[in-house]
Amino acid sequence: MKDDKSLLLRAIKLAEEGINKGGGPFGAVITMDGKILAETVNRVVVNSDPTAHAEVLAIREAATALKSRDLKNCILYCSCEPCPMCLGAIYWAGIQKVVYASDRNDAAIAGFSDKYIYDEIILEPSERQVKFVRMDNAGGENVFKIWVKNENRIPY
Amino acid sequence: MKDDKSLLLRAIKLAEEGINKGGGPFGAVITMDGKILAETVNRVVVNSDPTAHAEVLAIREAATALKSRDLKNCILYCSCEPCPMCLGAIYWAGIQKVVYASDRNDAAIAGFSDKYIYDEIILEPSERQVKFVRMDNAGGENVFKIWVKNENRIPY
Repeated sequence: MKDDKSLLLRAIKLAEEGINKGGGPFGAVITMDGKILAETVNRVVVNSDPTAHAEVLAIREAATALKSRDLKNCILYCSCEPCPMCLGAIYWAGIQKVVYASDRNDAAIAGFSDKYIYDEIILEPSERQVKFVRMDNAGGENVFKIWVKNENRIPY
Repeated sequence: MKDDKSLLLRAIKLAEEGINKGGGPFGAVITMDGKILAETVNRVVVNSDPTAHAEVLAIREAATALKSRDLKNCILYCSCEPCPMCLGAIYWAGIQKVVYASDRNDAAIAGFSDKYIYDEIILEPSERQVKFVRMDNAGGENVFKIWVKNENRIPY
């Protein structure tokens, strides 16, 4: 079984290789019981997909490998601290532990928005740079009532 | 051109329909210049993909339609306030405006983790329920140096 440090170094190596494949400088590895389930690089530009961060792709790849949305026994190794999008994905996937090397400040110096988004997410929705408008008279809460009453629902 | 309210009602209708398709009670619509580019429902359970929230799927679908990772002239309508993962995706995609109906508190009452993740993301990484471990002696910052020096890089 490989140790945390060597798996993190693998994620960093992937990040470096990813640059030569036209991606951003980010790599990720997911393991379960010491076995590698996914190895990914950032593919935002290559795929024309703003959500194609290495961590999101690794989570999707591991979920496909396990045929499950639940990665509760998995560990994620990533070359940089996950951004808010990837952090959210980590929580929804139920990942157990995240090991990372550089952080949001290093990413900011290299021109990435991770820290900016962390700074925006704590603001009231109405105070953000992106315009967030809530219409609380549209009946959105009714859908949750239908959900809770539905005996066939599968919570996640 | 449809107004914000009617497009939000469409997202809510999709959320309701999505329940009957085995999804969570969430729907999303993305428009550009008043034209609908994407209409999606939550597919976490159906796809065994923890990232398959309606908003993320709508962003991916709109990016595919535009063949671009940049959705800067787009508006996102969603039945509920976007979770941190989806908020991150919104920022990375450069979406201009978000219109939503119910919020993280409504989602919490229905059993969803949106508010919990919003509460976790503001904590220091070491203080979260998910174990976040930084190894700052792994050389992760070197990858950013290679990136910045690479004249062929495509920033995003």
